[in-house]
Amino acid sequence: MADTGRRTPDSHSATAPGSSRRSFLRSVGVTGGAGALFATMGALGLAPTARAAAAPRFTAPARSDFTLTGRAAAKVVVLGGGIAGLTTAYELGKAGYDCTVLEARDFAGGRNTTIRGGSRITDLDGHTQTAAFSDGQYMNAGPARLAQWMVTLDYCRELGVPVEVFTNTNGSAYIYNEGAGMTAPQRYRTAKADVYGYVSELLAKATDQGALDKQLTADDKERLLAFLEDFGDLGAKADGYPYTGSARRGYSTDPGAAGTPGTVLGDVPTASEVFASQVGRTFTFEFEYDQAMLMFQPVGGMDRIPAAFVRAIGAHKVRTGCAVTSVSTTGSGVTVTYTAGGRERALTADFAVAALPPHLMARIPHNLGPDVQTALKAVTPSNAGKIGLEYRSRWWESADRIYGGITETDMDLDHIWYPSHGYHDRRGLLIGYYNTGAHANAYAALTPAERQARALAQGMKIHGAKYRDEFAAGFSIAWSRTPHLEGAWHSMQGGGPDAAVYAPLNRPAGRVYFAGDYLSYMDAWQHGAICSARKAVTALHQRVLSS
Amino acid sequence: MADTGRRTPDSHSATAPGSSRRSFLRSVGVTGGAGALFATMGALGLAPTARAAAAPRFTAPARSDFTLTGRAAAKVVVLGGGIAGLTTAYELGKAGYDCTVLEARDFAGGRNTTIRGGSRITDLDGHTQTAAFSDGQYMNAGPARLAQWMVTLDYCRELGVPVEVFTNTNGSAYIYNEGAGMTAPQRYRTAKADVYGYVSELLAKATDQGALDKQLTADDKERLLAFLEDFGDLGAKADGYPYTGSARRGYSTDPGAAGTPGTVLGDVPTASEVFASQVGRTFTFEFEYDQAMLMFQPVGGMDRIPAAFVRAIGAHKVRTGCAVTSVSTTGSGVTVTYTAGGRERALTADFAVAALPPHLMARIPHNLGPDVQTALKAVTPSNAGKIGLEYRSRWWESADRIYGGITETDMDLDHIWYPSHGYHDRRGLLIGYYNTGAHANAYAALTPAERQARALAQGMKIHGAKYRDEFAAGFSIAWSRTPHLEGAWHSMQGGGPDAAVYAPLNRPAGRVYFAGDYLSYMDAWQHGAICSARKAVTALHQRVLSS
Repeated sequence: MADTGRRTPDSHSATAPGSSRRSFLRSVGVTGGAGALFATMGALGLAPTARAAAAPRFTAPARSDFTLTGRAAAKVVVLGGGIAGLTTAYELGKAGYDCTVLEARDFAGGRNTTIRGGSRITDLDGHTQTAAFSDGQYMNAGPARLAQWMVTLDYCRELGVPVEVFTNTNGSAYIYNEGAGMTAPQRYRTAKADVYGYVSELLAKATDQGALDKQLTADDKERLLAFLEDFGDLGAKADGYPYTGSARRGYSTDPGAAGTPGTVLGDVPTASEVFASQVGRTFTFEFEYDQAMLMFQPVGGMDRIPAAFVRAIGAHKVRTGCAVTSVSTTGSGVTVTYTAGGRERALTADFAVAALPPHLMARIPHNLGPDVQTALKAVTPSNAGKIGLEYRSRWWESADRIYGGITETDMDLDHIWYPSHGYHDRRGLLIGYYNTGAHANAYAALTPAERQARALAQGMKIHGAKYRDEFAAGFSIAWSRTPHLEGAWHSMQGGGPDAAVYAPLNRPAGRVYFAGDYLSYMDAWQHGAICSARKAVTALHQRVLSS
Repeated sequence: MADTGRRTPDSHSATAPGSSRRSFLRSVGVTGGAGALFATMGALGLAPTARAAAAPRFTAPARSDFTLTGRAAAKVVVLGGGIAGLTTAYELGKAGYDCTVLEARDFAGGRNTTIRGGSRITDLDGHTQTAAFSDGQYMNAGPARLAQWMVTLDYCRELGVPVEVFTNTNGSAYIYNEGAGMTAPQRYRTAKADVYGYVSELLAKATDQGALDKQLTADDKERLLAFLEDFGDLGAKADGYPYTGSARRGYSTDPGAAGTPGTVLGDVPTASEVFASQVGRTFTFEFEYDQAMLMFQPVGGMDRIPAAFVRAIGAHKVRTGCAVTSVSTTGSGVTVTYTAGGRERALTADFAVAALPPHLMARIPHNLGPDVQTALKAVTPSNAGKIGLEYRSRWWESADRIYGGITETDMDLDHIWYPSHGYHDRRGLLIGYYNTGAHANAYAALTPAERQARALAQGMKIHGAKYRDEFAAGFSIAWSRTPHLEGAWHSMQGGGPDAAVYAPLNRPAGRVYFAGDYLSYMDAWQHGAICSARKAVTALHQRVLSS
């Protein structure tokens, strides 16, 4: 269920019950975030809490909670200035808590990172990239899209971050399955017309011939056939409901003035050819609960969200360049040591909320107990990568008539994203690859220059020479090699964040609380980080109010 | 193929060959624009020019065409300041033609009309409406969306009109088929999961049981079954590939933090119930060549396009409030009379381009011959209506989590559109109905107040009391009752704009040329009006150059 793009396990939130279930669950658990696994189990009624849990309604701490009870707000140190940490400080701040956020990097946001001209990152292998992007061009290196139901949008509204449509689906974008023998890209719309056409033809034939009479009444059959004739754009019953092409495939010459009725794309492949080409491989992406259009993005870059959080919290309370070096809980408080400007410093507070990546928290000396350490070590980071490619012209709009959306490939690029903003501008920036798992690891092993060369060479197979000739500047991220993060999302053991091994993180360890997307059912989504932070905030605040 | 919304004949550009073909063609020809009919015939290889016609590439007239040949540009009067007329004046103006546009209404744009606070229209029945919309709220009363391939987008780029996504499809919007017995609206995503689930289950069963062994090889079957398992989110082969629900239906409790895995929407209907509910009725809308996402709109209102045309042409050359009263072609020129400010005036020019609605042109005295008059009278206008409903809050976003898109109904509302801009603003404006044909005529027969009352009462069935309680201001348009337009699009006789009866309009009548969307294969789309204007411009310019 992570923001990983099509056909990655994380984006595949639904599943098949029955005997294929186990292998499916195993594949999700092994290669994807366990959040997806548990959500899946919940959907199937396998998870212990799946039926019981109604969403706890979040009520933000308020100043009146203290003024009306005579109690005082506490001092809280938040470890990590990603979305979970920022949400924690923001929500606690509403009631007057004295929060300090310690962030190891030079800027807040965590994986919510937007690369602009001048952005500079040195990775764990010592490669330094400085983005040479033009003014107004940017690349959302981490999360890039928001579903309508996600609480992230509520924060955009509350914090005054304008949003616009993220173009997650486009019938004019391409499909290119090199491994299935495709020699040229095909428009999504063409693939849909052919696949739905043949699926409809086959089901109409079987229905009409009585093969499904055990399952269907006469009324059912009539309604189903009417649906299929429309859905597949089929020919007549007397001819066997043939699919012989459709204007939905698109036109080689568009309809225009009198004399130009348009020419529908011809050379309709056979059903065998369509199935062999695997063009239907990614169709269900757009039906997933976390990926279905309409999707949204903040205007101007995803990092407008952490920037708005920091403004609301108070910039002086979010200390960047502060890497935590130890955490100690005591009977009366928490002591945190950290390095800043090359010097070791210490901070004490009444409580701490640990919103660091769990595998990095596991490396920091603490006195939170062996069960906490075991739980932290039971989270395995997994990888994702992206490259931003700025172009001198928006040839995808002017030449290919692709205004946004995603081209799907079976190459190691996985996906190419066209920009969801700046339509008709002079320049623009593509995501030249967004890949996960083994593909991400393969690119992570290359130097930034090698990644760029490979991305351009692969993309040329789809878009031709202009993909190289119009290129202006690139910047790549390999999350596994990014300091203080070292991962894109998480593989969780034994059933997700509610598995027994993680129980020590779902309750306070002394005066230390834990928060992060990994402790949610929406791993790698800001929604998950926010929900987890709200849970920690609620528990901490209830404790303070009842003390 | 017109911009008419779902399931109207005009939007249904593709069809079924075979014996059902005739009835389909007839239904399109009778109730929809004949442009759709002829495009359909072209797609089927029935239309005489369908195979021959490659799109003529448009080359705009240029000043050098005259400076290099020693000829002079002519004086042209353009009748009608809709998109066809404005395109004509704009393109001819590039070469230095002296163009005057005569527009009967108080503003240019024709059916491209955007209603804002203060907009005032008196209809043919004497009803005057003045829009009380707030600043920033608007309603595109006519065309509202642009497909990526349409030349309209090229003019947006050339004229500097910024565009943004028009949200033509949204999985979170509703379907409500009252006539099919639905008692509550259902999300589009839920309907898709169920329909695709059962279609996949049925085809998987038939395939697995050998019912399609004549059509499919063993390889085909394996690939098809793999596709269906994914497409339908099906259970195991051993269980008969059952569809038993899917996370794609949506959640009643969204996945959140640990302890909240989410609850998938239950109460999965049976296949019989799904087919009987007709929820699949409108699925193919999003596959049509002219309606498939991604779609676009100008930022700030569709009338930014005519406004940009007028700026480029020169505002003094577009004379509003000028109703043409006669047209005479002579051996040496054209004389046009018109009323302006209550007085009769006359204008002479070398040529005229008649870009008025054809049924209105037929009422104007002219000397263009009986064949022209027969052709003009062979175009029958058809109707469409819209109502804009401004609300004090954007409850569709905050309460229903619907950010844009279209709710489909089988009520006389036809469609409800949620706005594609201003997300998270305080106020917003819905299109409360966008209907065509008999539904549009029924609303046209009501007073504006009655239309509004009916729209609110119908919409409450879907959205409840907030649909009435949060309402602020309304404005409705009935195109059939709108002066100087009197229609939304056109029914063409005998096969569309290239039918023999229209031949006199596809060539000049003396020194008068004709242009308009009705003379294109994209009736009611600005693309059609522009293509037709380009054709007239090209013919006129070639004549001047060869004179």
